[in-house]
Amino acid sequence: MDISKLLKPKKIAVIGASEKEGFGGDTCRNIIRYMNPEDYYFINPKREQVQGVRCYPSISDLPEPVELLVIATPMSTVEDFLREGAKKGARGAVVFASGYGEVGTEEGAQAELRLKALCQELDIALMGPNCAGYANYVDMIYPYAFISNERDRKGAVGVVSQSGQLVLSMMEAPSIRFSYAISSGNGKITTIEDYLDFLVDDEDTQVIALYMEGSKQPAKLAATLKKAALKRKPIVVLKTGRSAKGQALAASHTGSLSGSDKVFDALFDKFGVIRVDDLEELISTAQALAVLKKLPENNGFSSISLSGGETGICADLGQITGLNYPDFSEKTVKALEVVLPSYATVNNPLDSTASLSYDINKFGSVCEAVMKDPAVGIVAIGYTLLEEISDNAIYYMSEALERVMKEEWAKPCLMLPFAENTRNREYVKKLERIGVPVLPTSRYALKIIKNILDFTGYRPEDHNLEVAILSDLTMTQRSSSEKSKLPQEEGAGRVSTALTESESKMLIQKYGIDCGIFEVARNREEAGEIFTRLKLKKAVAKVDSPDILHKSDVGCVILNLNSPEKAMEAYDTILKNAKTHFENPDIRGVQICSMAEKGTEVILGVNNDPQFGPCVLVGLGGIFVEIFKDTSMALAPISRKEADNMIRKLKSFRILDGYRGAPKSDLDALSDAIVRISEMAAERAKELRELDINPIFVYEEGICAVDALYIKQ
Amino acid sequence: MDISKLLKPKKIAVIGASEKEGFGGDTCRNIIRYMNPEDYYFINPKREQVQGVRCYPSISDLPEPVELLVIATPMSTVEDFLREGAKKGARGAVVFASGYGEVGTEEGAQAELRLKALCQELDIALMGPNCAGYANYVDMIYPYAFISNERDRKGAVGVVSQSGQLVLSMMEAPSIRFSYAISSGNGKITTIEDYLDFLVDDEDTQVIALYMEGSKQPAKLAATLKKAALKRKPIVVLKTGRSAKGQALAASHTGSLSGSDKVFDALFDKFGVIRVDDLEELISTAQALAVLKKLPENNGFSSISLSGGETGICADLGQITGLNYPDFSEKTVKALEVVLPSYATVNNPLDSTASLSYDINKFGSVCEAVMKDPAVGIVAIGYTLLEEISDNAIYYMSEALERVMKEEWAKPCLMLPFAENTRNREYVKKLERIGVPVLPTSRYALKIIKNILDFTGYRPEDHNLEVAILSDLTMTQRSSSEKSKLPQEEGAGRVSTALTESESKMLIQKYGIDCGIFEVARNREEAGEIFTRLKLKKAVAKVDSPDILHKSDVGCVILNLNSPEKAMEAYDTILKNAKTHFENPDIRGVQICSMAEKGTEVILGVNNDPQFGPCVLVGLGGIFVEIFKDTSMALAPISRKEADNMIRKLKSFRILDGYRGAPKSDLDALSDAIVRISEMAAERAKELRELDINPIFVYEEGICAVDALYIKQ
Repeated sequence: MDISKLLKPKKIAVIGASEKEGFGGDTCRNIIRYMNPEDYYFINPKREQVQGVRCYPSISDLPEPVELLVIATPMSTVEDFLREGAKKGARGAVVFASGYGEVGTEEGAQAELRLKALCQELDIALMGPNCAGYANYVDMIYPYAFISNERDRKGAVGVVSQSGQLVLSMMEAPSIRFSYAISSGNGKITTIEDYLDFLVDDEDTQVIALYMEGSKQPAKLAATLKKAALKRKPIVVLKTGRSAKGQALAASHTGSLSGSDKVFDALFDKFGVIRVDDLEELISTAQALAVLKKLPENNGFSSISLSGGETGICADLGQITGLNYPDFSEKTVKALEVVLPSYATVNNPLDSTASLSYDINKFGSVCEAVMKDPAVGIVAIGYTLLEEISDNAIYYMSEALERVMKEEWAKPCLMLPFAENTRNREYVKKLERIGVPVLPTSRYALKIIKNILDFTGYRPEDHNLEVAILSDLTMTQRSSSEKSKLPQEEGAGRVSTALTESESKMLIQKYGIDCGIFEVARNREEAGEIFTRLKLKKAVAKVDSPDILHKSDVGCVILNLNSPEKAMEAYDTILKNAKTHFENPDIRGVQICSMAEKGTEVILGVNNDPQFGPCVLVGLGGIFVEIFKDTSMALAPISRKEADNMIRKLKSFRILDGYRGAPKSDLDALSDAIVRISEMAAERAKELRELDINPIFVYEEGICAVDALYIKQ
Repeated sequence: MDISKLLKPKKIAVIGASEKEGFGGDTCRNIIRYMNPEDYYFINPKREQVQGVRCYPSISDLPEPVELLVIATPMSTVEDFLREGAKKGARGAVVFASGYGEVGTEEGAQAELRLKALCQELDIALMGPNCAGYANYVDMIYPYAFISNERDRKGAVGVVSQSGQLVLSMMEAPSIRFSYAISSGNGKITTIEDYLDFLVDDEDTQVIALYMEGSKQPAKLAATLKKAALKRKPIVVLKTGRSAKGQALAASHTGSLSGSDKVFDALFDKFGVIRVDDLEELISTAQALAVLKKLPENNGFSSISLSGGETGICADLGQITGLNYPDFSEKTVKALEVVLPSYATVNNPLDSTASLSYDINKFGSVCEAVMKDPAVGIVAIGYTLLEEISDNAIYYMSEALERVMKEEWAKPCLMLPFAENTRNREYVKKLERIGVPVLPTSRYALKIIKNILDFTGYRPEDHNLEVAILSDLTMTQRSSSEKSKLPQEEGAGRVSTALTESESKMLIQKYGIDCGIFEVARNREEAGEIFTRLKLKKAVAKVDSPDILHKSDVGCVILNLNSPEKAMEAYDTILKNAKTHFENPDIRGVQICSMAEKGTEVILGVNNDPQFGPCVLVGLGGIFVEIFKDTSMALAPISRKEADNMIRKLKSFRILDGYRGAPKSDLDALSDAIVRISEMAAERAKELRELDINPIFVYEEGICAVDALYIKQ
């Protein structure tokens, strides 16, 4: 299937052309309004003409081949039109009809599968069903079913959305301009991943804005994100499903199994994708990135406002948002002191006082001084641009900015309003033309600036850009068999997929994780013999059984053994205790281990996400994980830089880093372990279900995994 | 001084009436445009008339008394005009001139003090200097110096702002309507606290919106907030200075010593004040509260949107914002299933599907079903209202809402847009008329709903509405003498204001805090004698000295003493260690204490804020406070409910509440201790500087303060 036949067709035919309000009529209205009359045909057997345009009775009657079919007729007719159109050369189709997978019935699902098979047979790239179509502003192709007010929308943001309503809202928003706006509909034939891939390659698209509820082709998604990351093309994503309520909604909406939402965070982190929280942030982050003529070279932020109150808002919200206001250099301070009135205080964020905003030269000089400061990477001008200009400050400010933005030394610059006014369109255009985006109000504005800085701070070379996802085909099969249960201690169901602790440790040892010395005794005597042979001073005995997980709670761990005799005694006690608590447990023996010195307790775990493969989690043990949820995650395989970052992102990092004069933990060894475990997980992605190394002790030098549990699929 | 002469004057005189752009001319333009010609006079000795209005040469020449002087002439002329005006009956004045305290010179500060004294002498309430004046929309009095586009601004929000620019932005914002809009300027004569007090009493003001950088009359501020709390009149505050940068800015702007910003949080908590983060949130929270015809009766939130994407955004942002979407009752689900199309999923947040929005009856029925659910207290309708209506859904929806909102069972309801479009003013008006505010975009909207729910959830009877602030006069004196240093262990400067541990414990014991048994031995023998007399089994010896704070670090605490002999030995060791580490320390003896059993370690502290008096802090000890900053604060004195809440707000609350099967700590005893300490702090507000009880052990039953440090002013 060739998606360009769908998105960049030479000729299109609208089947079901109509006068009426609704999909057929409104699509015709859009096409007539925006397209070249030579590029489309209307089909309606019952009419001579529609909206003044000649109608053909059928696709077959068309005088020449067409590449795209826009089918505005009901579901029952779609397949026939596809067949007829394919004969006339069509290799793309937009299908508005609903009644397919989205209704949640078996019938609907079957119809969609049939449609998919037919498209494969006919080699047709199909948008929908149950979509609103698309608008291609690059070539002005407009098979889109909703009417919006006319305005200049041609720009550089490529939009793909699983929600038709959100595409409409974006097209209504005055603040964004598009290369493409695509409503993917059910998206099981041509998928959002296909569209995304197209936009990553498309040279007319500078920034991609994506609304998604989940992915049906995780492998393709990851490959596409990788391509974008290497090209440094920004992708801004609004993905719902962060909350339990949102996740349930998305699942019921798309009907697909969605992995944990946190895994998407890990995915986006890996590829430098900007994740946003609502539509306004999506629109404005994407548009700002498209308008800026260059990106910041460092993360130093400065804001220039005209009053103390506004400057205070910038300072506080900046801190809440995690922005960094560097102090101005001495040179900058001196330059500003020359221009600013005597009562002004020179500070970053800067209150340049209202008087400056009526003087092109002075305002320009303030911008120049701030932009030339080496610590400043990006600048916001705090000013509420009104629809009806009652104050001419904006005239002077925009003139000054026009001069400034031409200079070599100009830094990326944005306008930051403080109230949600309507904005004067003429000035917005003028400012955008010189590369200065006008942001939404402050709370959004500072977040958007943070998004831009996060994007520019991302370096693909710091990340391992591989993922251990099975192919998308295998994935679908797997997700349906994803029914096995986790091992449970209580109850009858013994699950044989868990390895014992000693097996688990032997496995991770192979990947270079130090687990101390241990061996499994099969009988009482062996316990003593192992103690002696391994030359242990102090040992621990633990039951080795895939059935017994919380060993300490049931007296199956005995510490501080200092002689072969004690080891033998421990063997007996453990066996007795195990048999008291469990009915016929699968006991492989009793592990005799060197007793590890206590270090900082860390948890290192892997969860194999059904969609995106193994995801590695690290955190400090106990309350840190359980009460403060203080963990960080990354998708395997993980680079050394990523592993370092995972550790540094922890709120409890200070504890590892030598808290209260305690010795600093061996962060290198821990990072190294994370990388190795991630590589192991990636390698064993087909077989691994879950791995818990809890705890792993981190010492001043080295680490030691004290307990491990490996569970197979 | 009578502030009503300033804000509700019968006749006003503008001194410095002019044709030109600027304060004098623009104020005249505003007055001519908005006021009744009989209510004002223009004064200008050089002109017969200004802007077509007759001019009088001087105030004395006016044909009748005036109540308010609006002085638009330079600083040097102000005092004379005040004297002349006072003779003509003026008891209020607005002074635009700058050059006073705000310039930061000694000269400016002196001029302001002189102005203040003169106003006291003449009994004049003065707004400014360095202000933009005010607009009184109740009586249409408009001595305001900035020109805005004409629109209907009369409403129920009273605004006071320390920043003139922010008042202007609020007046420009299309979404707010006012009773009063006041730019307080320097605000040292008539203060923001005075204006606030006026608005709390004012019956035309339903909601107060306040921008402040700090308070110059903390006692008056607290008294006014208390009055508003008891009246249940909402006050929405934007206070800058949350961040270090913001605090520095605010300090340089207002020149006043500002207490810790966190103390303002405690102040606002006490009185149910809504604190917001930026101007847009201030505007829209205030306006929403003014438009709603009733307030929610419970905190259950429901949103109704027209698409899955929008519903997903509501779900996720709702959780981020801390809103609670209760599940619908069975009855509600059934009622919704009747109305919604078969493919819809009934859920809260609700995707009512786009089709419903074109049917008045069905949309009304959906609203009815949701509003009648007893778990729902407030409802948002997700819909992006456009300026140019290209889709008639809003017609049907607003008709439906008009019917719904008339009903007895109607719940508070708001419109929630997803993109920052311009909003159709006609529909905004229509919706506001029926009590449905149109909010800004989603991130703000959900926060505003949370603000409303926080306000309605506040119950004054749960709080101790007293504060232990010294009078505002005393305060000013105190803040300038606030120079004494904290005791430091190193270095020469011994500070005598710290009590020793035993003195500190004896003090808090008086207020009912259990500190175990202890006594101070003055010599070796006494140490043994105390051990025997107090019948101790296991004791701790600690140096008792105001000079040695971190006692353990220097070998001045010895644990586990089990005989009189050991106690005597410990006495010697401690004295020796103290003398090794400190040169000539002030040692009062060695405490012999019963050794407390280990409990959950809690820190209980008091800081006496220079503005708002003693502020009590509680948190779990060690990493919880130091790494996770997990503390809560409240202003003394504290009610039992407030104390309970402080404990429950801690992230680490689970540890107190019986984490991992550990016994539950005695929360009652801890709450009780917080209340007692707060009462003690309030009682001793003049003398106390700081109190640290660290740690206080909390047991399954009871508590024990193990160490305490009381520092006097």
